[in-house]
Amino acid sequence: MALKKKPFNGMRDILPAEMQIRDYVTGVIKDTYKSFGFTPMETPCVEDIGNLSSKQGGENEKLIFKILKRGEKLKLAEAESENDLTDSGLRYDLTVPLVRFYSNNAANLPSPFKALQMGNVWRADRPQRGRYRQFMQCDIDILGEASNLAEIELILATTATLGRLGFSGFQIRINDRRILKAMAAYAGFAEEAYDSIFITLDKMDKIGMDGVKEELLQDGYPAAVCEKYLALFEKVRTNGAVCLQDMLGDYLEKEVMDSFAEIMDSVNANKEDTFELVFDPTLVRGMGYYTGTIFEIAMPEFGGSCGGGGRYDKMVGRFTGSDVPACGFSIGFERIILLLMEKGFKVPAAHKKSAFLIEKGVDGDRLNAVIAEANAEREKGRQVLMVRMNKNKKFQKEQLMAEGYEELKEFYKNPLK
Amino acid sequence: MALKKKPFNGMRDILPAEMQIRDYVTGVIKDTYKSFGFTPMETPCVEDIGNLSSKQGGENEKLIFKILKRGEKLKLAEAESENDLTDSGLRYDLTVPLVRFYSNNAANLPSPFKALQMGNVWRADRPQRGRYRQFMQCDIDILGEASNLAEIELILATTATLGRLGFSGFQIRINDRRILKAMAAYAGFAEEAYDSIFITLDKMDKIGMDGVKEELLQDGYPAAVCEKYLALFEKVRTNGAVCLQDMLGDYLEKEVMDSFAEIMDSVNANKEDTFELVFDPTLVRGMGYYTGTIFEIAMPEFGGSCGGGGRYDKMVGRFTGSDVPACGFSIGFERIILLLMEKGFKVPAAHKKSAFLIEKGVDGDRLNAVIAEANAEREKGRQVLMVRMNKNKKFQKEQLMAEGYEELKEFYKNPLK
Repeated sequence: MALKKKPFNGMRDILPAEMQIRDYVTGVIKDTYKSFGFTPMETPCVEDIGNLSSKQGGENEKLIFKILKRGEKLKLAEAESENDLTDSGLRYDLTVPLVRFYSNNAANLPSPFKALQMGNVWRADRPQRGRYRQFMQCDIDILGEASNLAEIELILATTATLGRLGFSGFQIRINDRRILKAMAAYAGFAEEAYDSIFITLDKMDKIGMDGVKEELLQDGYPAAVCEKYLALFEKVRTNGAVCLQDMLGDYLEKEVMDSFAEIMDSVNANKEDTFELVFDPTLVRGMGYYTGTIFEIAMPEFGGSCGGGGRYDKMVGRFTGSDVPACGFSIGFERIILLLMEKGFKVPAAHKKSAFLIEKGVDGDRLNAVIAEANAEREKGRQVLMVRMNKNKKFQKEQLMAEGYEELKEFYKNPLK
Repeated sequence: MALKKKPFNGMRDILPAEMQIRDYVTGVIKDTYKSFGFTPMETPCVEDIGNLSSKQGGENEKLIFKILKRGEKLKLAEAESENDLTDSGLRYDLTVPLVRFYSNNAANLPSPFKALQMGNVWRADRPQRGRYRQFMQCDIDILGEASNLAEIELILATTATLGRLGFSGFQIRINDRRILKAMAAYAGFAEEAYDSIFITLDKMDKIGMDGVKEELLQDGYPAAVCEKYLALFEKVRTNGAVCLQDMLGDYLEKEVMDSFAEIMDSVNANKEDTFELVFDPTLVRGMGYYTGTIFEIAMPEFGGSCGGGGRYDKMVGRFTGSDVPACGFSIGFERIILLLMEKGFKVPAAHKKSAFLIEKGVDGDRLNAVIAEANAEREKGRQVLMVRMNKNKKFQKEQLMAEGYEELKEFYKNPLK
């Protein structure tokens, strides 16, 4: 039976031209984050299925690639459901594995621990343009830092990285889950309703104020509550975040608002001109684990989120029994690569490239001389490709030049040729 | 229920100290291979189960982590065996995926295609010291090059890389599957017996000439044949490969021996002093797909193979129907990392590291000034960690110095402090 040439359904091969850009971007990301004191670490791609299904991953938990139990553990005849067949799965994000890692290794890690993790994750989403079932994620996280220094550093480091990759004119939208809740409480919604309300609120971008109102009314919430809620967003739109302080007074601790304002001030005072930091009271972010600040990168070229993150102070406790403050920011690596490819981005040339074309039948001594010459060039930092000369030499040389080989050198059987 | 803190069975977390070495080694490997004209590419970690179970992976095919079918495809009630439950699995090496990649993309790749692939692979082996169920492989391959220029380049590039990582005093052992077969044929073994004989021969290192002889006799091969066979190895040991040429004349094409000698000569003429190239007629290499030259890295520090490869001219044909010459060399990435860790290897410092300790309660303006100073330092290429000052400042500073922060700077609420 012939083997399958295509990648497995929903996955893809990465060709040299894209790979070159990916390697370059990875280098810039690592260098920049390291300059902010983040240290690389890694977790396995496979995690215990219980950890992956612990209701922290929201909708992503429905998209897990599950791995079959092995050997005696797999009892097919007795299996009643899918869960009986599997004990592990491919991670769907890097946050749950990071927190497991931290819980397992905290004694051997600095405090606070500033982690940089780049790695593949898998989600069995319906494949679509630019979205594949295996994709790279790139996260920075600070564990053990309760103060807003974490948020400030995460935003400055992430935006510095995007700046070095040539991006500008984007927004960092910021909100806080506690502000989100206080606004809903102030309007008169019951706490059980928050999740449903926030799903609707999250559509503000697409369906506008009227659309959100209509959907809330359809869901059966009292008109007076809905109106009071939306009036609040109207006020923020005209008067800025400042007006919330007084209005939400009874529903929100002063420290939360102060700390939020401090993040805004501090980032604004230190940020590059490449982006704008914007308070967005409609920002929700789906993951159930967020407990405080949340943020998102909005890139005009992409018409959607290009990364995001937030504070999740309760997740370590799920592993260890005692909470540790935590906050993270994830860059949409695949989207960045896609944008750079579409822009026709060229990696700044690091090395000069030469190709040595060798005629078939050159004798051993001559071949050795050619190899020695190639090695000497390589020592000087040059990239040297040695290839057999094809019959259609003209075509071969055109191809090589198209691949970026600037210097082509030919070596014949007869050195005098 | 509490979540599991340990990595999934047989897998492991990689801590910052090791990760730093891994990143450094990855950089050296990529730079060196690129200087030889190899181009990075990538394939998904998940492959079609049919491709993974096509009898090319030898024993590794028994160690596949299989992935459960999803949604309607999973028919648990009707499933009679494991195979009915799965349609994909985690790759156990990078060669089968590379050849699928090449078969799928050849029209968009240069010819010959010099591929560099680094990525994780998975094998459900019994976990043991230094061997985990997820590990990094690092392969270079040349597809579309029939001549021995492929072998010469692969060996020179691989050994140059090992040299730049500080390894020396190792051997590259080389053999050819065709020589291996010719020697068995000359002695009088039947072709069907080769696989079993080679499994015994492969133990020469451990059980010696007498042990091999005994095992062959036990397996029921005629004494005369066994003696003729082993006498051949004795002759090579005393007289070198040259003596084979005449003796195997009827069993081995002259071109094979000539080409083999040319590889030896050419590598020896161009190689660095860091290693020795040795013809080893007992070298077998298990993978079923090898068709010609085979080689292996023997490192005294490791007491075993630290990588290897060979020519596999028939594998592309299994995907496309027409053969393409192919040859590859894989470095034992994890073993190299283990050796460097054991040596106490220190990554050459790229950046100076400073830590800024900030007292709790510094006001916004002062914090902004500290951030501005940190960013200015980072612009200069310095690595700057900003952290809150702990109550036990002395301990915190000791820890930071242990992590390599050379300059520690303290910032207080009251700047005059």
